[in-house]
Amino acid sequence: MKKTIAVLPGDGIGPEVTDAAVKVLQSIAMRYGHTFHLKHALIGGSAVDAHNNPLPDETIAACTASDAILLGAVGGSKWDQNPGHLRPEKGLLNIRKHFDLFANIRPVKAIPALLGSSPLKEEVAKEVDMVIVRELTSGLYFGEPKRRTEKAGIDTLVYTREEIERIVDQAFEIARTRRGKVTSVDKANVLETSKLWREVVEERKAAYPDVEVEHMLVDSAAMKLITDPRQFDVVVTENMFGDILSDEASVITGSLGMLPSASVRSDGFGLYEPVHGSAPDIAGQNKANPSAAILSAAMMLRHSFGMHTEAAAIEEAVMSVLEDGYCTGDLSVEGKHVVSTDRFVTKVIEELERE
Amino acid sequence: MKKTIAVLPGDGIGPEVTDAAVKVLQSIAMRYGHTFHLKHALIGGSAVDAHNNPLPDETIAACTASDAILLGAVGGSKWDQNPGHLRPEKGLLNIRKHFDLFANIRPVKAIPALLGSSPLKEEVAKEVDMVIVRELTSGLYFGEPKRRTEKAGIDTLVYTREEIERIVDQAFEIARTRRGKVTSVDKANVLETSKLWREVVEERKAAYPDVEVEHMLVDSAAMKLITDPRQFDVVVTENMFGDILSDEASVITGSLGMLPSASVRSDGFGLYEPVHGSAPDIAGQNKANPSAAILSAAMMLRHSFGMHTEAAAIEEAVMSVLEDGYCTGDLSVEGKHVVSTDRFVTKVIEELERE
Ligand SMILES: CC(C)[C@H](C(=O)O)[C@@H](O)C(=O)O
Ligand SMILES: CC(C)[C@H](C(=O)O)[C@@H](O)C(=O)O
Repeated sequence: MKKTIAVLPGDGIGPEVTDAAVKVLQSIAMRYGHTFHLKHALIGGSAVDAHNNPLPDETIAACTASDAILLGAVGGSKWDQNPGHLRPEKGLLNIRKHFDLFANIRPVKAIPALLGSSPLKEEVAKEVDMVIVRELTSGLYFGEPKRRTEKAGIDTLVYTREEIERIVDQAFEIARTRRGKVTSVDKANVLETSKLWREVVEERKAAYPDVEVEHMLVDSAAMKLITDPRQFDVVVTENMFGDILSDEASVITGSLGMLPSASVRSDGFGLYEPVHGSAPDIAGQNKANPSAAILSAAMMLRHSFGMHTEAAAIEEAVMSVLEDGYCTGDLSVEGKHVVSTDRFVTKVIEELERE
Repeated sequence: MKKTIAVLPGDGIGPEVTDAAVKVLQSIAMRYGHTFHLKHALIGGSAVDAHNNPLPDETIAACTASDAILLGAVGGSKWDQNPGHLRPEKGLLNIRKHFDLFANIRPVKAIPALLGSSPLKEEVAKEVDMVIVRELTSGLYFGEPKRRTEKAGIDTLVYTREEIERIVDQAFEIARTRRGKVTSVDKANVLETSKLWREVVEERKAAYPDVEVEHMLVDSAAMKLITDPRQFDVVVTENMFGDILSDEASVITGSLGMLPSASVRSDGFGLYEPVHGSAPDIAGQNKANPSAAILSAAMMLRHSFGMHTEAAAIEEAVMSVLEDGYCTGDLSVEGKHVVSTDRFVTKVIEELERE
């Protein structure tokens, strides 16, 4: 297959982890006879520096002309004092909205070799295996009116039935390929949008008789993610709750540095990026953990290109390298062999070539 | 001193834990020469059953004629299908709003004897000692428009400068009596209300030069509460974020059954209730842990009545009983002696009489 990929390295460790993912993609292309055409473009702080715009038109054009987007990370204290429209994260919000990437998909899976670095007791964190499906283009993030005066501030939480239907359907579809359980998280005892959300989930579930559905209040979900995370299979929720709960979930297994994410729309087009941030403090030091970026590339192969074998090969290679005792400095697990970013990538590629 | 206390037992285990707290208050009254005049009234599901109203006028009148309110818990699946205005939690929302109880104060402190029941590793949870200060009468919970149609739902997040100022001041005052650090949690990279919030915190901090202030994004706070909870002293945040984060925080030390809360306004009047819910599954079985209700009564003595010695005596008595190895069935800690609600209360009162 021939595919065009927009590569947006972004800021901080973004470039080095994206480079790592690209090397892995090149190895896959060689081995499986694909051609990946790469279009590099700027986003976030580096785009603000170069073009005074966190999402320049050239970047939008490069993405439009591609089959998928691979992103590193955006942000850094350098741009923290910028006005809103010149902040790195505005690039992220704009690209999600521009391409209608309404479904943010974040798998969180315990990796036995890394449980030692989890803040949770091993018996609580082990065998955690969930996917958080967060609505990404509506809700409090984008609702109008959204403004402030000298005396007050206002944000608006709006959801239409259609916006809820499509994200809920996405969650049901994912649950079907897994353990068949959807936990829909809302605050239906307080919010009108949540009442509509719950109603839509109840309606849509008729189309997925094979999937079990439960409703959970967001405050309760925030507790259960810690006290009993194994109960979750697929969690679906609105934008703001999803922001909070997916970050909470990202630390429970101790493998934040390993977590990939996808932000997709219904036709398969999507943006793939590590869950971790731009970590400016270790940028350029060949220390960053490239696993999340590499696993994001694997998600891209599977979800946007339908390359299931190739995606699985990457995932297995990364896990093998970890099981062989190699890791990067972010994972402080006793008895592990800490290696540089480059060395880790080389190990993954060697593993891929061996398979 | 003579004080009138409105006692609202509520639903589920509410009545039995409130009874326990009342017994402890009576012991305090005897010993310290106070008179506590109690006015019992209905709230929540039991008020819906009796008066078709989760917050009857009689209850409002009893509270108005009191110096403070002691509440058990509300809710239960029996009322889950009721329309919104006849749901137990509506009683809670209404009483907060009616009495302008804008500051919800929730201490979370690790209890060494109970760390075994924490889902977190002992080295992460030990020595946690924070207070979450949540704005309770504004934001998404109450903002208008708040409605739904067939096709969409809408909720409104509004904050005025005054609403933010008073809760932020409350947090600064509390920090002064503790380690002198305030973490203000918002989502200033996305929400206009959060930008105003952050601005107000920056303005108010000038009046508290002895207090250190940091700003943290809500998604990041949700992670750090798990990975490094000891960094927090006083956390202040808006209503919806506070709902989520305070429940998350309530489980990290393994002592949810021990946590009290206060919901107060500026003149010292307040409502005191356990953080745990109504637990209908164990109601009436003499199994419930009365500690959170008893410690809520202690918070009432300190905060609403200025009875610092008496409050400290109660807190010490509860801790002594725990250290002596007694606990209720909710705390599954090895080597503990599990006793009934009644027996636990008797132990606490014996301890009080010994002091
Ligand atoms: C950077 C920020 C705007 C963004 C969000 O809140 O969506 C981030 O936290 C995320 O989760 O991708
Ligand atoms: C019952 C519910 C309305 C309430 C809230 O969300 O405020 C509860 O969760 C709480 O935190 O006291």
